[in-house]
Amino acid sequence: MSDHRVRKDGNVGPVDGSQVPRYAGDSTFARLPRIDEVDRADVAIVGVPFDSGVSYRPGARFGPAAVRQASRLLRPYDPAFRAGPFLEQQVVDAGDIVCTPFDITKAVGQIEEAATELSDGGSTKLLTIGGDHTIALPLLRTVHRVHGPVALIHFDAHLDTWDTYFEAEYTHGTPFRRAFEEGLLAEGRSCHVGTRGSLYSPDDLLEDSDMGFRHFTSNMVGTEGVEKVMAAVRERVGNLPVYVSIDIDVLDPAHAPGTGTPEAGGLTSRELLAMLRELIPNEVVGADVVEVAPAYDHAETTSVAAAHVAYAI
Amino acid sequence: MSDHRVRKDGNVGPVDGSQVPRYAGDSTFARLPRIDEVDRADVAIVGVPFDSGVSYRPGARFGPAAVRQASRLLRPYDPAFRAGPFLEQQVVDAGDIVCTPFDITKAVGQIEEAATELSDGGSTKLLTIGGDHTIALPLLRTVHRVHGPVALIHFDAHLDTWDTYFEAEYTHGTPFRRAFEEGLLAEGRSCHVGTRGSLYSPDDLLEDSDMGFRHFTSNMVGTEGVEKVMAAVRERVGNLPVYVSIDIDVLDPAHAPGTGTPEAGGLTSRELLAMLRELIPNEVVGADVVEVAPAYDHAETTSVAAAHVAYAI
Amino acid sequence: MSDHRVRKDGNVGPVDGSQVPRYAGDSTFARLPRIDEVDRADVAIVGVPFDSGVSYRPGARFGPAAVRQASRLLRPYDPAFRAGPFLEQQVVDAGDIVCTPFDITKAVGQIEEAATELSDGGSTKLLTIGGDHTIALPLLRTVHRVHGPVALIHFDAHLDTWDTYFEAEYTHGTPFRRAFEEGLLAEGRSCHVGTRGSLYSPDDLLEDSDMGFRHFTSNMVGTEGVEKVMAAVRERVGNLPVYVSIDIDVLDPAHAPGTGTPEAGGLTSRELLAMLRELIPNEVVGADVVEVAPAYDHAETTSVAAAHVAYAI
Amino acid sequence: MSDHRVRKDGNVGPVDGSQVPRYAGDSTFARLPRIDEVDRADVAIVGVPFDSGVSYRPGARFGPAAVRQASRLLRPYDPAFRAGPFLEQQVVDAGDIVCTPFDITKAVGQIEEAATELSDGGSTKLLTIGGDHTIALPLLRTVHRVHGPVALIHFDAHLDTWDTYFEAEYTHGTPFRRAFEEGLLAEGRSCHVGTRGSLYSPDDLLEDSDMGFRHFTSNMVGTEGVEKVMAAVRERVGNLPVYVSIDIDVLDPAHAPGTGTPEAGGLTSRELLAMLRELIPNEVVGADVVEVAPAYDHAETTSVAAAHVAYAI
Amino acid sequence: MSDHRVRKDGNVGPVDGSQVPRYAGDSTFARLPRIDEVDRADVAIVGVPFDSGVSYRPGARFGPAAVRQASRLLRPYDPAFRAGPFLEQQVVDAGDIVCTPFDITKAVGQIEEAATELSDGGSTKLLTIGGDHTIALPLLRTVHRVHGPVALIHFDAHLDTWDTYFEAEYTHGTPFRRAFEEGLLAEGRSCHVGTRGSLYSPDDLLEDSDMGFRHFTSNMVGTEGVEKVMAAVRERVGNLPVYVSIDIDVLDPAHAPGTGTPEAGGLTSRELLAMLRELIPNEVVGADVVEVAPAYDHAETTSVAAAHVAYAI
Amino acid sequence: MSDHRVRKDGNVGPVDGSQVPRYAGDSTFARLPRIDEVDRADVAIVGVPFDSGVSYRPGARFGPAAVRQASRLLRPYDPAFRAGPFLEQQVVDAGDIVCTPFDITKAVGQIEEAATELSDGGSTKLLTIGGDHTIALPLLRTVHRVHGPVALIHFDAHLDTWDTYFEAEYTHGTPFRRAFEEGLLAEGRSCHVGTRGSLYSPDDLLEDSDMGFRHFTSNMVGTEGVEKVMAAVRERVGNLPVYVSIDIDVLDPAHAPGTGTPEAGGLTSRELLAMLRELIPNEVVGADVVEVAPAYDHAETTSVAAAHVAYAI
Repeated sequence: MSDHRVRKDGNVGPVDGSQVPRYAGDSTFARLPRIDEVDRADVAIVGVPFDSGVSYRPGARFGPAAVRQASRLLRPYDPAFRAGPFLEQQVVDAGDIVCTPFDITKAVGQIEEAATELSDGGSTKLLTIGGDHTIALPLLRTVHRVHGPVALIHFDAHLDTWDTYFEAEYTHGTPFRRAFEEGLLAEGRSCHVGTRGSLYSPDDLLEDSDMGFRHFTSNMVGTEGVEKVMAAVRERVGNLPVYVSIDIDVLDPAHAPGTGTPEAGGLTSRELLAMLRELIPNEVVGADVVEVAPAYDHAETTSVAAAHVAYAI
Repeated sequence: MSDHRVRKDGNVGPVDGSQVPRYAGDSTFARLPRIDEVDRADVAIVGVPFDSGVSYRPGARFGPAAVRQASRLLRPYDPAFRAGPFLEQQVVDAGDIVCTPFDITKAVGQIEEAATELSDGGSTKLLTIGGDHTIALPLLRTVHRVHGPVALIHFDAHLDTWDTYFEAEYTHGTPFRRAFEEGLLAEGRSCHVGTRGSLYSPDDLLEDSDMGFRHFTSNMVGTEGVEKVMAAVRERVGNLPVYVSIDIDVLDPAHAPGTGTPEAGGLTSRELLAMLRELIPNEVVGADVVEVAPAYDHAETTSVAAAHVAYAI
Repeated sequence: MSDHRVRKDGNVGPVDGSQVPRYAGDSTFARLPRIDEVDRADVAIVGVPFDSGVSYRPGARFGPAAVRQASRLLRPYDPAFRAGPFLEQQVVDAGDIVCTPFDITKAVGQIEEAATELSDGGSTKLLTIGGDHTIALPLLRTVHRVHGPVALIHFDAHLDTWDTYFEAEYTHGTPFRRAFEEGLLAEGRSCHVGTRGSLYSPDDLLEDSDMGFRHFTSNMVGTEGVEKVMAAVRERVGNLPVYVSIDIDVLDPAHAPGTGTPEAGGLTSRELLAMLRELIPNEVVGADVVEVAPAYDHAETTSVAAAHVAYAI
Repeated sequence: MSDHRVRKDGNVGPVDGSQVPRYAGDSTFARLPRIDEVDRADVAIVGVPFDSGVSYRPGARFGPAAVRQASRLLRPYDPAFRAGPFLEQQVVDAGDIVCTPFDITKAVGQIEEAATELSDGGSTKLLTIGGDHTIALPLLRTVHRVHGPVALIHFDAHLDTWDTYFEAEYTHGTPFRRAFEEGLLAEGRSCHVGTRGSLYSPDDLLEDSDMGFRHFTSNMVGTEGVEKVMAAVRERVGNLPVYVSIDIDVLDPAHAPGTGTPEAGGLTSRELLAMLRELIPNEVVGADVVEVAPAYDHAETTSVAAAHVAYAI
Repeated sequence: MSDHRVRKDGNVGPVDGSQVPRYAGDSTFARLPRIDEVDRADVAIVGVPFDSGVSYRPGARFGPAAVRQASRLLRPYDPAFRAGPFLEQQVVDAGDIVCTPFDITKAVGQIEEAATELSDGGSTKLLTIGGDHTIALPLLRTVHRVHGPVALIHFDAHLDTWDTYFEAEYTHGTPFRRAFEEGLLAEGRSCHVGTRGSLYSPDDLLEDSDMGFRHFTSNMVGTEGVEKVMAAVRERVGNLPVYVSIDIDVLDPAHAPGTGTPEAGGLTSRELLAMLRELIPNEVVGADVVEVAPAYDHAETTSVAAAHVAYAI
Repeated sequence: MSDHRVRKDGNVGPVDGSQVPRYAGDSTFARLPRIDEVDRADVAIVGVPFDSGVSYRPGARFGPAAVRQASRLLRPYDPAFRAGPFLEQQVVDAGDIVCTPFDITKAVGQIEEAATELSDGGSTKLLTIGGDHTIALPLLRTVHRVHGPVALIHFDAHLDTWDTYFEAEYTHGTPFRRAFEEGLLAEGRSCHVGTRGSLYSPDDLLEDSDMGFRHFTSNMVGTEGVEKVMAAVRERVGNLPVYVSIDIDVLDPAHAPGTGTPEAGGLTSRELLAMLRELIPNEVVGADVVEVAPAYDHAETTSVAAAHVAYAI
């Protein structure tokens, strides 16, 4: 193990950027220790390089590698929180979950199994880097095993509560309908934030509403402000355990060009980061950042944003 | 004709994205029917691949193809309007107007002739995808034949009311001065929105004002908000027939890098889309979206924005 | 139907590039007529936007659209052949075959069914634009129905005769083993051209040889020359009906960056075009050009090469 | 000297864009005269192509050339100021300061010497285009020789008041600590604007504060608005001579991808330009725009923003 | 004038790259002196930023700036020639010829006039950087005034001897037919080198042959080698004064992606450079390098090649 | 340690690509084990992310990460050698050598020290991924400690035997002059391969020759062929221990755009790979692949080539 890692209270932090240049050395998330370098993990960052569930631009299978690369720029102390998230608790990089690209149902099973093993009965919280949004379903199942139904805060341009797509049940447009059907979500406590764009039909919104979701559009964030929207979000989730799922396309294509189904009119990265800072960390029992498609990214704009977003969680 | 098209009230809509993947099949705007597939058109989307009038970066000749490609992501129902613009009326893709790249005056004539034929005495409204801003002049002439002088709402970083450029009368910097001189615009009812950047001299603004234009700068949109500016715009145009001309460079280069004369400090795509939703659709008798130069675009950021903008109109 | 199309002997050719600029108008392959615009087709160009069988970089689902876009530069007369391939016979663009991205086996069936219908008992030859190499299997099945076992000339950096990959039988690395097992290939008459790069094990080559393939490496083309290699290829296929399958990664990444599994040390586009000109066209009963992944392309380098390659066939 | 230059009151302005296309001719900043073409300079634009002090992505050595190229789009009259900055005073392009890339300490000396000679005892104000932020130190020394301690307004995502980095004293992360130590800054009158992102430790902020800096975060600009923040900035600097140092990474990566250490959550270009317009020009005795790294830029987005920023100063 | 320029025999050469970094300082071609810095010029490099004659991708108006930028890498001594082309004779950068983008005929006149003035009765040879191929016509007229009919060696993927295009006589596809008609070319002494790709009809070649051109295809260079082809070329031109016109698309798109009408199967840069070295310099009375379109270039691949090509001439 | 690694004869090979997708998992070179995962290393791949010695485009500090990423495509068996280089001997990834970017002399010392420790008295051969060419000097010193003076085979567009550059002794243009002066090279046994391009003066070649180098130009490879040139190279090095240093710019910019000082007219990747296969592996005692600058790369073209090159060694 590198002897350049910052330590505090027995926790092993990132490699010190003033000792080892940030473009050198291991490519773990934020230069954190690998899971096999420490004996305990409060939070594990794990990649799920899977994009067989996408309906438009593929490529999110390269998301975990790109976000890790961009995360080299993160430093250990976050002045916005007055906290050093990597030193107050043991955070590790757990590598990638291996799953087949050729069979979606099988892959969903592989992800659930690996995530469940990794979460170790809930003693390790998972922050997952996707991958496409299909992966949220097995991750919610994993969380549900420990915590029961959770409140979902879902940042996305899209609803992702469609039913099927070419008769397929498991795709990146359907995870939250499946989660609802499987009882993984607490009733009436979930919401979408940042939605916008066109739909297939007016029924899309009705059905979404019937499943108990509320949505706060991107426009609402622009006109009413971050604080007001997040107050409503917090009120909705109450004191339930919370799962945060962030499709990077919640950002405007200017801030996140590297994604599969871009929609104009999105959030700025400043807005999204400010919203995440309004969350109450203790209640977050799992999170994902998905749909980073590096082939469409430029100058790491998208993956830098995703890395900051993951850091803010 | 594809049997996968959505239909309602006798209108033929886009190909159904849950039956035919959005990356497959015809490349008409928003996967709408071609004009020869239906017997009537309320609105025709038409491309004008022409960029011989540009003063800096050329390439808008590839704009129509790029915007059509990006428009594959549009779905038929717009929740922001609570309407399905493609089903309430018959919207078609009328292909491209053919004009020479080697003689601007001749091309302006070709565009006017083709647009006039297509608009069919006003029974078909045209939404034109440019091409450079030179094309607004023949399109305004076409509209004028049916409606007489119109109110112009012009979204742009620039005024486009210069006189001549290298002695040339018809360029992308001069259409609205020509339109004023030809009496195509109703007196004192037009405005520029989103202007910013440096000018050749203080006379530019004086002359613009003498032609009866008002302008609402990009900064004004930022400090006073979308609603207030659009209220002033609506008051100015009154109940006249309105022509909406959108130079995509009204957006900030972050949101629209793929354009010919980028100016920092522009609108966000969220602001522009919100402003367009404040327009009263019935009074819009024609519109264009111009200056998309795909060679400078990245990950379709600009053409996705342009496609959403065209959709919002 | 556009009245700008070139005609000869009753055949309808491409739109005339000196009447309609090549950046304007329909986006069919080489600006040929759509299949519904003529009453007969000797050759049909058809896209198969499918890439769920790839093992590394996805994105070939956008291949058909990109190759069509790049094919606008093709003109009707080929001096290297002293022939106008689009006027001697009726060539059409048959659009895209629709297949699901979410279930490989089902998609393979959909492709076979659509290709069989399109080939119309063999009276229409298909030139397919992929899509990933998985699609060669259903296309060979289609050809086999009419012609029985064929000789395969396979241009590729890779063998594509692996057995399974993550237990999946149908992927872009396995079509020719499946074709061999299904008896679609004439015994001992097929070959790979342009292979290079590392393998999983020495067994890969042995098994390939056991299936009756010969291979001519990229290096061999460089040292022995195009003519000598092609003489050997022609001798091998004899007078059997020939299916030509071209993975664009047979070209060096310099010539084809936009592909899924690039290997250094490949052919130049001049070499590949020269080799294709050495084929005897009458005996080619089907062909495909696959693995163009536009997200990794630059300045259409790859898709221009692919368009020329398709034209040369 | 070109006879197409605009002139007024004896001052020589830029080449006239309606006489010489803006893509043609000399590549001086904003097409201004070179310093050897006029006999006097009130303001000199000077490039410092130096990036040996960077800790992450290098490439700012190409910044001066890129910003000059992008500055071709600037026109002589700025309506936001109701002024023509290039005609009220003699502004020139003084070319690049030559310094070694291989020895930071020597380069810092070369920059100081050349800048001092160029400023000619203060009669010529310098607007410097970097280059990395290391160069701010010798430029502050130059200003200090004439004006004594100055107030610094520092736009940046980062503090740039670290102590050493790999034991090196002069880097792009340390110029303002060195400036403080050398007494170049007036006590308690300087500030950072636009800061955000993670730090090495909580001490970073404490030490910064001990050196007498105040900081206005990017978030503050978003929630409190440009005017309020700039009022506080102006109050802080009082009537002291002001040096303005702008790291282009103060902008969000969406607006400035082409930079060395991007941080999500930054300012928009509209905000930054509005803030610069709130400065009182007479009191600005020197300025720099640094950290433009063109290799990571796209469609000149970053360099266009930097050119406008330099213009606004 | 910079005192870092290399000098010999009274000639002023480039700025010394070991004194001034090659990324710093003036952006003249190969860092040569500007024409106003010396009192005599044997050879003048001049840019013609004009691209209004293109039929597909525009953007060559930015060619001169890009080639100058890439030419910073050239050093004064060429070992392949055992000569220092910039020291044996006085070579200068004469800046750009100004011409309107809005009227091709007028621009052709402006180019002819400026080139004639610059060539100073033949005492200064011109090496022109385009711009599109339209400009070859006025440049040939200029050469003809001094030397009478010349032999043309034309490197290009295309013939450029079409008649009209959309009724326009002066375009990038027609200069050499116009030159033939105007008697600028010596009878039966000209040739095309590197041609390939498809044509509009078999007549294209017949007409070309009737005008007295011979052509050496790209394939011929590949199979017969550089020396043999160039021997035939030299035999053809005999001892006539020679004009060399190089369309950068003679290179394969792998070597020159940044051009307007790319054709696969082209020359390598090594082949082109070797061919140019086989020319006899004294007999070359003028030359151009055209069709560099930087917006489609990557990492300056095309403009570096063009700079080397210009250097080799 | 991953249990998906291929093993043979006690050696631990790469992760099996048919078990773990090649876009998933650890980012070691070719997915080899890390040095701390095995107890012995015959060959160690080590990165040196250092680029402070470059004279033009920087960015090679990101070379090791990019080459590792591209090396994921390598498979364990090389049919061209009929060998599996990763199974016949224990090959490991030793991570990156840490050195300061701010002081070249200090960094050269840090590299020498770390490399010497890693090579473990010669029992571990090093294959180094740069970084710029400055690093060849400390690596040659390391090899010299064990083997005494070696024969150098240097693939490069440039000689890299300049004396000083801005008075600096240690830069990417000077390592082999320093090596000569320090006696690290066997007399008259070294050579450059692939050189081309312009020089500062004829003295460059004379001095190079005086130091006992021979050079085989890129042109020579093209006209005489790989085999003949390599026979001459092998004759020159005799049976001495050989150090192979490969500047990726020996490839043509078409094959390696992502490098610092591109020169047109270079080798193809097929030629370079064929030349490396002609080396006698046992006699190679060390090697480097340098000057991969990913910011200028496209679609990993350069880093894929570099990965294959490293593999071939």
